[in-house]
Amino acid sequence: MARDERGVTPQSEDFSSWYNELVTKAQLVERGPAKGTMVIRPYGYRVWELLQAELDRRIKDTGHENAYFPLFIPESYLKREAEHVEGFSPELAVVTHAGGKELEEPLVVRPTSETVIGEMMARWVSSYRDLPLLLNQWANVVRWELRPRMFLRTTEFLWQEGHTAHADEADAMRETLQMLAVYEEVARDIAAIPVVPGEKTPGERFAGAVRTFTIEGMMRDGKALQSGTSHYLGTNFAEAFGIQFSNDAGQLELCHTTSWGMSTRMIGGVIMTHGDDKGLVLPPRLAPYQVVIVPIARGDQGEAVLAAVRGLAARLKDAGIRVHVDDRPQVSPGFKFNDWELRGVPLRLEIGPRDLAAGTALLARRLGHEGKTAIRLEDAPEVLKQELEDFQTFLVQRATEFRESRTRTVDTWPEFTDAVASGWARALHCGRPECEDEIKAETAATPRCIPLAGAADSGTCVRCDAPSAYGKRVLFGRAY
Amino acid sequence: MARDERGVTPQSEDFSSWYNELVTKAQLVERGPAKGTMVIRPYGYRVWELLQAELDRRIKDTGHENAYFPLFIPESYLKREAEHVEGFSPELAVVTHAGGKELEEPLVVRPTSETVIGEMMARWVSSYRDLPLLLNQWANVVRWELRPRMFLRTTEFLWQEGHTAHADEADAMRETLQMLAVYEEVARDIAAIPVVPGEKTPGERFAGAVRTFTIEGMMRDGKALQSGTSHYLGTNFAEAFGIQFSNDAGQLELCHTTSWGMSTRMIGGVIMTHGDDKGLVLPPRLAPYQVVIVPIARGDQGEAVLAAVRGLAARLKDAGIRVHVDDRPQVSPGFKFNDWELRGVPLRLEIGPRDLAAGTALLARRLGHEGKTAIRLEDAPEVLKQELEDFQTFLVQRATEFRESRTRTVDTWPEFTDAVASGWARALHCGRPECEDEIKAETAATPRCIPLAGAADSGTCVRCDAPSAYGKRVLFGRAY
Repeated sequence: MARDERGVTPQSEDFSSWYNELVTKAQLVERGPAKGTMVIRPYGYRVWELLQAELDRRIKDTGHENAYFPLFIPESYLKREAEHVEGFSPELAVVTHAGGKELEEPLVVRPTSETVIGEMMARWVSSYRDLPLLLNQWANVVRWELRPRMFLRTTEFLWQEGHTAHADEADAMRETLQMLAVYEEVARDIAAIPVVPGEKTPGERFAGAVRTFTIEGMMRDGKALQSGTSHYLGTNFAEAFGIQFSNDAGQLELCHTTSWGMSTRMIGGVIMTHGDDKGLVLPPRLAPYQVVIVPIARGDQGEAVLAAVRGLAARLKDAGIRVHVDDRPQVSPGFKFNDWELRGVPLRLEIGPRDLAAGTALLARRLGHEGKTAIRLEDAPEVLKQELEDFQTFLVQRATEFRESRTRTVDTWPEFTDAVASGWARALHCGRPECEDEIKAETAATPRCIPLAGAADSGTCVRCDAPSAYGKRVLFGRAY
Repeated sequence: MARDERGVTPQSEDFSSWYNELVTKAQLVERGPAKGTMVIRPYGYRVWELLQAELDRRIKDTGHENAYFPLFIPESYLKREAEHVEGFSPELAVVTHAGGKELEEPLVVRPTSETVIGEMMARWVSSYRDLPLLLNQWANVVRWELRPRMFLRTTEFLWQEGHTAHADEADAMRETLQMLAVYEEVARDIAAIPVVPGEKTPGERFAGAVRTFTIEGMMRDGKALQSGTSHYLGTNFAEAFGIQFSNDAGQLELCHTTSWGMSTRMIGGVIMTHGDDKGLVLPPRLAPYQVVIVPIARGDQGEAVLAAVRGLAARLKDAGIRVHVDDRPQVSPGFKFNDWELRGVPLRLEIGPRDLAAGTALLARRLGHEGKTAIRLEDAPEVLKQELEDFQTFLVQRATEFRESRTRTVDTWPEFTDAVASGWARALHCGRPECEDEIKAETAATPRCIPLAGAADSGTCVRCDAPSAYGKRVLFGRAY
């Protein structure tokens, strides 16, 4: 089938069109009827479920418990934390009528749950023995989007939001950084995105936070994607909602709270980190189908081949491989190859009568590296498991090299503008919000983070020559 | 600690107060700030997660794929299916403002998703090769409740809703009944609720359905709880949304669709099917903690006992048992016993220095049956696994016997009113909605279902002496 029907605009030609066409054509997602909403189709939702399972396990292993808090938050709750309501007001969706009547107090559809969870924490915490209180919820949230983009910025999205309360700053900060490390691990080991963990500058903090940490991934157009954030909220929400405990001397103290979230945005990150002109490239650990088998035979031979393929698929499934047999009679093998390449399946096996007679199958890797290889059917489960691991490793390496090749340490303004035109710049910065604004106005680049692993460094601001802040270089880039 | 602080009103005294106090005191749930909403606390949410995992596996094993559809549905969508909008209108919550502006078209917060999924199915289905289309989503839904009751009737609740499209009635009906059977299995084998599967009478059908099937459980006050429903929607939604396919002769036909749902209401069912005066009784397969170990020792001995208890807990965990060690220093063993009885933990182990010396522990079962038994620490994993299985079986048997003892086959009106005062009545009914209404007005009982397994029977209506309908007896009872 011709490119115009099945294929997508090449990534190299127009990254944005490539992305918008691909998410739909790969059957990951579709626009919902209400502005900015998305329908996550089974293929896309399976990616989310696989990511969710990995993240949920780690959230539980670090001592957190899942709970569920209401979707509707009284408007007055949001107003209790001044910065918080200021930050979220423009994005709120509000229920004014319910049960056939106008409500006395409008209900906000949660954009995030610090306020309602703060209210409940205040009821649940009374003694130091109740701390730390370690909660998480998997939920949908709503933030009205004027310029929606599937997965990246949608009016409704799915996420987990962790909310914890602690006796002091040290314990809350340990939690904030622990969850950032969990996000980094999930991004790197599961999504194959080698993110940079770091702290946001004051201008980029979460509304109501004292410190905000982030993991930033580089997409194949050189732009950054904030892929998860972890906030130390100090005593801001504890004050607003009265989250207090009596310490072991019997005195009342305010709790220190944290919150942290990762969302369906990660799927957008996977697409833009690994995809190419042919379509998606899914890391094996998130691929709904890790291996697709295409039987190549017609008529009498067709049935024998299909029977052998089904047997092989059963063996692969038993070995824990997510396998799919494409037995559609109405389309050609060539169509199937293109289709599964577009949909990002890591490995493809082709089996015809001659392969069957020889006891082999032809293995093709999604990135075409190492050409096609004949593998013995007998060894298929072990060989493919190894191939999947190698593919996962290959993707992280490729993405790391790409990121390194597009990140430059710069000391002059021309170098800076040049670096952020195609990637990231490591630069010294004065830390003044107005200077950040000027940089953004001129280059569209923003401070993505102050990398945790950055070496001590200081000097003059790359833009304004004032003395640098933070004691480290800041990572700048354009971002989604 | 005294009953008034930790305990609950005895079930036998006031079932309703018992329930309302218990759900909070057992830390399952709490009222949310917006009217009728609930906060599901970790202990309650874990029950939901365990149920969810069992149901999700079965939904996938029967060929369905999970997806996610938007929370917000344009008001006009609901109006396309006349009965549907009439049924749901009084319960809708409506977003009229978003992003700081009044919306051109109000958005309904989904009460159920037939309409928005119907719209998408129409885009995805074109040929008979696309059928059946088997979808499911895990989501929150909102139905405005004037008289909320935690888990049973709340403004927002969590559920899964399956939505499928088929080429003909036979296939859609097969699906409808298949999912009813899945619900029956999950209720019986996981929640230990021996439900009765059957069909709803026309007056009790889902708004927009051609046929509605249900599973009905009997609570310990003799009332019924509708615990899951499965609907054959005919071509009603296919017509409203244009879900059509071309058959193998190339002609356009309307799809036949189904929908089916099970919700957090099931947690209420578990509480009311098994609980007693002391509190919750959780079936082992849904218990967050299947075994709680209470170390009984102080001072020097305390440390040795606690070390041994921790070792035992690790062995039980390795054996796949969900175990919790209650090492709270600030409360007495007696308090802990009451606490875990209130919270419904199936098995409790008590270990003191003398037990430790003898290499044993004292096992107490939540229902107190068979007294306390000394078990050998060495055999603990195998013994407890068997005890948990026995406990699960015991609960189903007990609930089945209870239901049978409270269900009577009746042929006269006095027998009928007597039966539904404390349980269920199997009666012949004329099938006229007005007659159903009169029965409800007089006795508060409604037709729960026409049991699938009911034997052929006919005669005159138990209420009005008109000829009976359905060719079977109908199960009547008061209901939640």
